[in-house]
Amino acid sequence: MAEVMAPAPRAPKEPRNGVNTPVLLATINAVKETPSLARFRFRATNRWKEGTYSETVVEAFDGAGGEHAHQTQFRYGADHPAVLVGNDRGPTPIEFLLHGLAACITAGIGNIAAARGVNLTSVESRVEGDIDLRGILGISDEVRNGYENIRITFDIAGDAPPEKLRQIVEQSKARSAVFDVLTNGVPVDVTVNVR
Amino acid sequence: MAEVMAPAPRAPKEPRNGVNTPVLLATINAVKETPSLARFRFRATNRWKEGTYSETVVEAFDGAGGEHAHQTQFRYGADHPAVLVGNDRGPTPIEFLLHGLAACITAGIGNIAAARGVNLTSVESRVEGDIDLRGILGISDEVRNGYENIRITFDIAGDAPPEKLRQIVEQSKARSAVFDVLTNGVPVDVTVNVR
Repeated sequence: MAEVMAPAPRAPKEPRNGVNTPVLLATINAVKETPSLARFRFRATNRWKEGTYSETVVEAFDGAGGEHAHQTQFRYGADHPAVLVGNDRGPTPIEFLLHGLAACITAGIGNIAAARGVNLTSVESRVEGDIDLRGILGISDEVRNGYENIRITFDIAGDAPPEKLRQIVEQSKARSAVFDVLTNGVPVDVTVNVR
Repeated sequence: MAEVMAPAPRAPKEPRNGVNTPVLLATINAVKETPSLARFRFRATNRWKEGTYSETVVEAFDGAGGEHAHQTQFRYGADHPAVLVGNDRGPTPIEFLLHGLAACITAGIGNIAAARGVNLTSVESRVEGDIDLRGILGISDEVRNGYENIRITFDIAGDAPPEKLRQIVEQSKARSAVFDVLTNGVPVDVTVNVR
C-alpha cells in the first residue's frame, strides 16, 4: 500500500508486475471522489494456549464501506524461544514486526513500479532489530522494552536505471503504513475484562 | 516477554501455566549477573513474489551470546486484499502488527501469572486498528499513513481475585516489547542496493 500516483500523467495503463494497474488507479480515483471509502478497520483475535504460546486468527476487516472476509482464515502462532524459556512453537511476537515492515514496503514497491511503468525482476530484503532484554526482564529501568533500532536493506532489480529503482523504494517507504507506525508510534488502548 | 520479578520474594518455584518458572527466574538472575546476555538481534528475510504479495522467512536470531536457530523455519506471506487490488494470499502487512501486539502481551501474561502463583484458565483478546487509506494512497497529506489508533481488549480468567488478574495484564503491558515499539516508535534505517 503506497503512493502510486506520481508521476500520474505518464502512468501506464496496462497490468505490470502482477499489479492490475488500471484497476488500482481507478480505485484511487474512486476514493478521491468518496473519501469515506478510505476508512478501514483491521482486526485480529488471539487465544492463549500455554506458557508463552498463543495463536492469532485474522479473517475479516471493515473497509470501503463494508465488511470483507479474507479468502482464507489466516492463523499464526507466536512463542518465546527455548533460550527465553519458551517452547519455540512460533517466532517471538516482535519478529512479526520485522515481517510486517518488509512486506509493507515490498508491496508498495510492486504497486509503485507498476504505476511508473517499471518491470521488476527481483526485490529482496533483510531486516533486523536490536533489543536489550534487560528492559522486559525488569532488570534495568534505563533500558527500553522494545527494539532500540531496526535496519532494513533492499536489493532491487528491474528494467529501469538505478536511480529510478532507488526512488521507487524511497516512495514506498514514504507511504508505508507499517514504516509510519513503527517510526512514529500510535496510541494503543488496552482494556481488561475479568471473566 | 515481560517483567516477571514482582513480587519476587514470594515467587513460587514450581512450573505453572506451562511456564517453567524456576528456569525463568534462573535465567533472569543469569542476565543480572552478565548483562551482555540480554543483547538480542532478531532477523527476517523477505522476497517479493508478484504484485503486492511477498514472503518472509524467520529462522534464526542472535542472543544470549550466540546464534540460535528456531526449531522450524517459519514462513509467512502478506498481500493486499481484493478490495485493495491485491490477491489476498495473506493478511495485509499491518494486520501482522495486531498479531504481534496481542501475542506479546499474552506471552507476558503467561509468564507473570506463573511467577505470581496464579493459574490461568483462559486469556483471549480482540485487537483492532483504524486506518484512513487516503494517507498511503497519496490522496491527502493531512492523513497519516499508518493506524490512527489501536484498541485491544483482554478477557482473562484464573484462580485469583479480579484485581490480581487485572494487575497481571497491566504489568505485562508495562513490560511488553511490542507495546513499547508501537506506542513509542523506533528508528528504522532503510538501505537500497540496486542489482
